Amino acid sequence: MKKMTRIEQILAEALARGESAGCPPRLAGAVRHAVFPGGARIRPQLCLAVAHACGDDDPALADGAACAIELLHCASLVHDDLPCFDDAPTRRGRASVHYAYGEPLAVLAGDALIVLAFQTLAQAAAHATHRLATLMTIVTRGVGLPLGIVAGQAWECEPKVSLSAYQQAKTGALFAAATMAGAAASGGDPEEWRAFGERLGWAYQAADDIRDVAGDPLLMGKPVGRDVALSRPSSAAELGLEGAITHFERMMDSVLDAIPSCAGELALRELVRIEAARLVPTQFFDGSQRIAA
Amino acid sequence: MKKMTRIEQILAEALARGESAGCPPRLAGAVRHAVFPGGARIRPQLCLAVAHACGDDDPALADGAACAIELLHCASLVHDDLPCFDDAPTRRGRASVHYAYGEPLAVLAGDALIVLAFQTLAQAAAHATHRLATLMTIVTRGVGLPLGIVAGQAWECEPKVSLSAYQQAKTGALFAAATMAGAAASGGDPEEWRAFGERLGWAYQAADDIRDVAGDPLLMGKPVGRDVALSRPSSAAELGLEGAITHFERMMDSVLDAIPSCAGELALRELVRIEAARLVPTQFFDGSQRIAA
Repeated sequence: MKKMTRIEQILAEALARGESAGCPPRLAGAVRHAVFPGGARIRPQLCLAVAHACGDDDPALADGAACAIELLHCASLVHDDLPCFDDAPTRRGRASVHYAYGEPLAVLAGDALIVLAFQTLAQAAAHATHRLATLMTIVTRGVGLPLGIVAGQAWECEPKVSLSAYQQAKTGALFAAATMAGAAASGGDPEEWRAFGERLGWAYQAADDIRDVAGDPLLMGKPVGRDVALSRPSSAAELGLEGAITHFERMMDSVLDAIPSCAGELALRELVRIEAARLVPTQFFDGSQRIAA
Repeated sequence: MKKMTRIEQILAEALARGESAGCPPRLAGAVRHAVFPGGARIRPQLCLAVAHACGDDDPALADGAACAIELLHCASLVHDDLPCFDDAPTRRGRASVHYAYGEPLAVLAGDALIVLAFQTLAQAAAHATHRLATLMTIVTRGVGLPLGIVAGQAWECEPKVSLSAYQQAKTGALFAAATMAGAAASGGDPEEWRAFGERLGWAYQAADDIRDVAGDPLLMGKPVGRDVALSRPSSAAELGLEGAITHFERMMDSVLDAIPSCAGELALRELVRIEAARLVPTQFFDGSQRIAA
């Protein structure tokens, strides 16, 4: 089965468990709206790619980890879009959850997705409990206090913040969790895969900043110009557009440097190449040529 | 160590881990505000009491489970108090989290507490991973879809809801998780302890409804009269105050009936007796006499 098909299927199975008898129908609708149709699903792709590179000796557990990571990402998008943060009317090219279902159900859909993520991981590990505590620690660190994506979002509420601490927590942390969880689910050493995920996360955040300044809202599927409007830390705002693109190029080099030598190395480089080309609009940066070099 | 001291200490240890180096200070403050000073801590007390009744062969794991349950309860209070739900200015006799820290940090504090709960559980189970998957399943069911407290809160957003489905999800689910997790943490059979927790949760919700209609806001630590103002399902609204009190009395009987025969039975009956007296203001219901009978 193709990786993207596999990811959509495991997400659909997780949601079906949540939507079973007795679930309030509008909450089920809001949760589904938050997950389908999806974005690039880069985090679960990364998780499965690393699991494959580490031997993929427990594909069901790798699926559970990938699914948990994506559900947590979807939860963060729903809450980040709320009126008290970005107040985003659109996401992935259609109404954001709170626009479609109202603010109460958007808050609850985010909460439900966080819980569903850990439920999915626990169920996937029922036959491999020796790996569950490690996976739980990796995933909760990527999301929670002190350095996960919730902390990253909270830096927007602080009077002072360093750009690198913000980018690391806001995006690097969950990317690192994705690669490390892929390794841990397959019996690999998660620490060997931390830098690869972390750096890709930083590059992803830098690309997001560039696209926010220069991107096309139709391409982004959400409003642009929000970082400046909301006074958020942004590499494009700090370095200027050209500086931010150079910064992004250097980051993509360091991402490739961080891939451990392994059987799946070529496939991972290809995944990074495709992402780089997708992340920054081609009028600014010809990613496919740059990374192939 | 007394049970309440033990509970405050395990909560303090969990928060200290979250607040470690690199955590955004205002988020750490909001999380702490949500947890300390606490309420009655009835859910973790229940969890530890059942763990004790089941032999308490792994006190550290029981502590982790009790702590996780209370952190999840605190998270639900923070989100339920938000302007889009109850818009409560006070909680436990002082400013609610969003009044003290603003709405963005209240959303994030709730998210952080959910994640911290699962992180705490996983860390407590690092030496007993064979019990972790079961504990995770119990706890996530108590909180998430389709029948946990998040679903309970979501029933307030549905055009039609049955009072019993609402009370079961809104309160019964996490009480059941507390008793079942106490059993599972100590190698007991969680299913034997479901009814006790579930019924106590229903009684607790019924008492909350009575206090909302008739209670003193200073005693409650939060505004009263909110159920009617917000058109929420309420046994006091459905049955009238007198009918709701009779309903509560019957529920307390069925709670006592559901305690399994075990070494800790007397201590559990005493816990229930104290709770009953605390739950409903004495001018309406002399709980100590009723339950001792």
